[in-house]
Amino acid sequence: MRNGDGRARILVINPNATVAVTEAIDEALDPLRFADGPMLDCVTLPEGPPGIECQRHVDDVSAPLCALIAREGNKAAAFVVACFGDPGLQAAREVTAKPVIGIAEAAYASALQQGERFGVIAILENSVRRQRRYVRQLGLDARYADSLAVGLGVTALEGEAVTHRLIETGRRLIEDHGADVLIMGCTGMARHRLALRQALGVPVVDPSQAGAAQAIAAVSIG
Amino acid sequence: MRNGDGRARILVINPNATVAVTEAIDEALDPLRFADGPMLDCVTLPEGPPGIECQRHVDDVSAPLCALIAREGNKAAAFVVACFGDPGLQAAREVTAKPVIGIAEAAYASALQQGERFGVIAILENSVRRQRRYVRQLGLDARYADSLAVGLGVTALEGEAVTHRLIETGRRLIEDHGADVLIMGCTGMARHRLALRQALGVPVVDPSQAGAAQAIAAVSIG
Amino acid sequence: MRNGDGRARILVINPNATVAVTEAIDEALDPLRFADGPMLDCVTLPEGPPGIECQRHVDDVSAPLCALIAREGNKAAAFVVACFGDPGLQAAREVTAKPVIGIAEAAYASALQQGERFGVIAILENSVRRQRRYVRQLGLDARYADSLAVGLGVTALEGEAVTHRLIETGRRLIEDHGADVLIMGCTGMARHRLALRQALGVPVVDPSQAGAAQAIAAVSIG
Amino acid sequence: MRNGDGRARILVINPNATVAVTEAIDEALDPLRFADGPMLDCVTLPEGPPGIECQRHVDDVSAPLCALIAREGNKAAAFVVACFGDPGLQAAREVTAKPVIGIAEAAYASALQQGERFGVIAILENSVRRQRRYVRQLGLDARYADSLAVGLGVTALEGEAVTHRLIETGRRLIEDHGADVLIMGCTGMARHRLALRQALGVPVVDPSQAGAAQAIAAVSIG
Amino acid sequence: MRNGDGRARILVINPNATVAVTEAIDEALDPLRFADGPMLDCVTLPEGPPGIECQRHVDDVSAPLCALIAREGNKAAAFVVACFGDPGLQAAREVTAKPVIGIAEAAYASALQQGERFGVIAILENSVRRQRRYVRQLGLDARYADSLAVGLGVTALEGEAVTHRLIETGRRLIEDHGADVLIMGCTGMARHRLALRQALGVPVVDPSQAGAAQAIAAVSIG
Amino acid sequence: MRNGDGRARILVINPNATVAVTEAIDEALDPLRFADGPMLDCVTLPEGPPGIECQRHVDDVSAPLCALIAREGNKAAAFVVACFGDPGLQAAREVTAKPVIGIAEAAYASALQQGERFGVIAILENSVRRQRRYVRQLGLDARYADSLAVGLGVTALEGEAVTHRLIETGRRLIEDHGADVLIMGCTGMARHRLALRQALGVPVVDPSQAGAAQAIAAVSIG
Repeated sequence: MRNGDGRARILVINPNATVAVTEAIDEALDPLRFADGPMLDCVTLPEGPPGIECQRHVDDVSAPLCALIAREGNKAAAFVVACFGDPGLQAAREVTAKPVIGIAEAAYASALQQGERFGVIAILENSVRRQRRYVRQLGLDARYADSLAVGLGVTALEGEAVTHRLIETGRRLIEDHGADVLIMGCTGMARHRLALRQALGVPVVDPSQAGAAQAIAAVSIG
Repeated sequence: MRNGDGRARILVINPNATVAVTEAIDEALDPLRFADGPMLDCVTLPEGPPGIECQRHVDDVSAPLCALIAREGNKAAAFVVACFGDPGLQAAREVTAKPVIGIAEAAYASALQQGERFGVIAILENSVRRQRRYVRQLGLDARYADSLAVGLGVTALEGEAVTHRLIETGRRLIEDHGADVLIMGCTGMARHRLALRQALGVPVVDPSQAGAAQAIAAVSIG
Repeated sequence: MRNGDGRARILVINPNATVAVTEAIDEALDPLRFADGPMLDCVTLPEGPPGIECQRHVDDVSAPLCALIAREGNKAAAFVVACFGDPGLQAAREVTAKPVIGIAEAAYASALQQGERFGVIAILENSVRRQRRYVRQLGLDARYADSLAVGLGVTALEGEAVTHRLIETGRRLIEDHGADVLIMGCTGMARHRLALRQALGVPVVDPSQAGAAQAIAAVSIG
Repeated sequence: MRNGDGRARILVINPNATVAVTEAIDEALDPLRFADGPMLDCVTLPEGPPGIECQRHVDDVSAPLCALIAREGNKAAAFVVACFGDPGLQAAREVTAKPVIGIAEAAYASALQQGERFGVIAILENSVRRQRRYVRQLGLDARYADSLAVGLGVTALEGEAVTHRLIETGRRLIEDHGADVLIMGCTGMARHRLALRQALGVPVVDPSQAGAAQAIAAVSIG
Repeated sequence: MRNGDGRARILVINPNATVAVTEAIDEALDPLRFADGPMLDCVTLPEGPPGIECQRHVDDVSAPLCALIAREGNKAAAFVVACFGDPGLQAAREVTAKPVIGIAEAAYASALQQGERFGVIAILENSVRRQRRYVRQLGLDARYADSLAVGLGVTALEGEAVTHRLIETGRRLIEDHGADVLIMGCTGMARHRLALRQALGVPVVDPSQAGAAQAIAAVSIG
Repeated sequence: MRNGDGRARILVINPNATVAVTEAIDEALDPLRFADGPMLDCVTLPEGPPGIECQRHVDDVSAPLCALIAREGNKAAAFVVACFGDPGLQAAREVTAKPVIGIAEAAYASALQQGERFGVIAILENSVRRQRRYVRQLGLDARYADSLAVGLGVTALEGEAVTHRLIETGRRLIEDHGADVLIMGCTGMARHRLALRQALGVPVVDPSQAGAAQAIAAVSIG
């Protein structure tokens, strides 16, 4: 649970198998790495699909994710499920008594503190439906503007054209749906956060960062 | 999709591997079998656990369930996922364009029409938490009394002593939580329905029956 | 309660006095008639107005409806109040211990299982207000897109021009209000269901069918 | 609309036929009679039942109530439907463009300003169910403790023994359900208000008074 | 508490220091002044800002407001906090056992009785955020269309050009947000009420009037 | 904003004037101090009351709190308002563009991730009312068990007898109200957290820790 120099280890698991996404997450977490704070170890779930883009993916990833958590149980102080669908989250919490953080849950919790109504930039149309269901499940509808999809899959989120599309979608959430804080609804969007914030002038939550911060708190406070 | 005599076939899938439960479901559906109505074929998912008693079970059953539905796609007009956790329901709806009915969803919808506040007799404590989450997800909290657990697993639900325990739990839902309609929170309770209704004097919903009725409607109306 | 050949009888009551509407309902219920299933008897309430188009109509129809149900109590196993305003529903449930189904209640319950957000195609502006009140009363606002009126009374719902208007209204519910399942908010719209579904690509609920299906379930399950 | 001395007239209609109840209402309104303010005329609806104690009564009273309002339309500036079931309220609003006040609506609105959670002292068990439905319809569940019945009909609410029973029920609403303001759920309870308030130490709303006050405001402000 | 001729005195406190606003409130309350009814004394809080236009103003005004109420405690029967932000309302209720009315609370309660969905014409963008928070705090979101800002401060609300702007904003609340009753979200709008109502054809609530009416009821009923 | 060694400074403000409480907060934050992470500077607001125990205190503390934040604006990267009433939170957010964290908001957000239903151990009866209002304001009622008071003021929270009382109150929240995560509703309870968690077996949230963790995240992520 703690490595040689006594630091706790947080295992951040990207449950899709796309290593480029894991790298983007890893990079996004840099500001949360402290010399004597918990280590943030980002790993890719090899059994995952390239992107978690439908409910099938969400369900199927639960088993290998839980297996990984069970295997690593003695070597980590907390786990972060780093996919905005929070796949396997409740199952994982049955597998280990250690904190398991879902980054969507963490992102919503963080957004509640940064504005009155959060809007979510989703990847695909069917993500929108899953997000509406999940926001209801969390009991947070009263604070939810809505989700809008950019129409791009997890592995198609790089590049400047994408930035523009994300900004455009964010603007509609603000102007048409009254959002005053935005959540990026996919880990693959991590590198666009600052551009979004600058263009739109509202807080923009990267769910991986929100999840890692919550894990650091859980591990440190104990 | 229709057999020799032109009747549509509804595949009712018990996603736990306990054949005795499938038999209890099958028996409970008899009143819904009409000479020229849809056939109700009850099958056991062999890959399922003995009982679906935690979130792990819910998640893990999704893959073999979807595989079964994909395989049977041409031979059935609708599918019923016959477990009160509605495991794999949303994933299954991605696999086929035919109606897929979740018996929990169907039971809640039926209960809404039979009383002001529904209460759920759950098997285990952790089922209670899943049910609270699911009721919120469905947006039905305003009509929900609560769930109370009898503390028995899926395979321990036979016998007269169990009847008494179910009645006692139902009574608390009515007297302490204001329920005026009850839902049996597990397919394994099917044989206790009439005893419960007689003892408690309120409508008692068997989710398998509610689900099959909804499937018959879906298939017949088209 | 059961006729000569032992089949249970369900009395489907059109509480408006327009026989053409009763005929449309009757026709819509054909797919739910099974050789050995409950009989579906559609009758017109002669004391009803031509169409139930305001709260006055809703209230006033309650007395003759309850009288009819009282008179027919021994000759029916269940009753369906076949008007989307669910007039007299709660009063009728005091008059008889047998199941009384409201088709609006049944339609909402059915729609909950066919999509995330239901929208209602209403006839008149003031129906919209009654529907908003009723959806709140049922505690279902979290799943309600909204109601939109076509601006036509109950007796003006025939013909191809009407089909186009219904489709146009349905499209706005989908595109502007996020509905992914539609409910036809008047029994007089029954004959347009398939055209709507085909044009819009989402499930379309005919409340009479939903109500009759629920009645069949209630009578059969017992 | 205004009598000889130019004062507006508010017609307070007791829709049950029990004159003693009308007298109790009339007496309760005395503090709201101002020399140059609107007149408060209390009348009994002769067609009403002795007490409005079930949904049948609620529905049936709508027609004669609306007829009375139509007849008196030119002779009153506003109408108060003085029964806690708000029978015929929405229908009456279609009959006249003048303000029609429902005393239940008015009582809830007033209670919202006098505490965090309102509880209702109901007459009969089935009133409780109607009140729960109505509170949901009004969208006020977040502020509703609950309703508890004393088990006495409208015409059995006189006498000291009744006072004790009302106090006992009020106390349970406060202690077990967290109410900090109470509503008397029947016009027949009017004479117990001060005793209740003194015994329980929380505000107690008489719905007739709340309704009349709202009518005075509506008529005066215009 | 009662002056020479025995009439109770209600102290209506304008917590902003703009005397012109106090005068507009005073004038708006004229229809609620009865010869033998409670006196309505309008005063300006000299310590208040010119207009209460941000949360700082709301918070800061609480202390002098409570001090004023404490000082006047023996000379008034009730207090009205006449600013749509309800500043200091809960604090004031701790200072005195007499009724303290918040005009926003009163306006919402009144609007609930005049339509299905209330919309609020706000002064500034940041008022909109405060109003959304407050409507949630009151538990009234189910009946809330939304707030829209005219973009004018408290002291810039006079004149015909303003009337047009208020009407335009009201129209958008009706047409785009489904409002069927409007609330003027600032005491400084009092003189525009009739023009708004006439132009828009829906009830328009002046919060000062709603608050004073509630205070008269509280004082008279006792 | 950053001190000599480049670390960002977070100003944690105890808005009550009791230095012992500031010390307890300071001690509770130790696990969140990282060598190269943001500094956590705890200060006492000298103008505050000994404990913030009523709405007056909440309102009155806003002005000196905002003044402090304005003064320190250049010397801190974020501010934590370390009182469970979140006094002055919204006002402070108008004073500075830097993150201002309310520890109640942060505690609720954190609790949402640690259980299904949070319960709050409150100090006094009137805190319970404020908390119910605030939970509604935040839109989180669907996840709220309730608040229960221990009946002790802010400065009376030391000692073993208090521990027992807190445990007893926590147990009632769990057993009677279904809470599965608890929040300590006052900064003065900080030293009891571990004892509570150990005795009750559920997560226990110290709001100061939750607030500081959120501030660290805000400052680090930027």
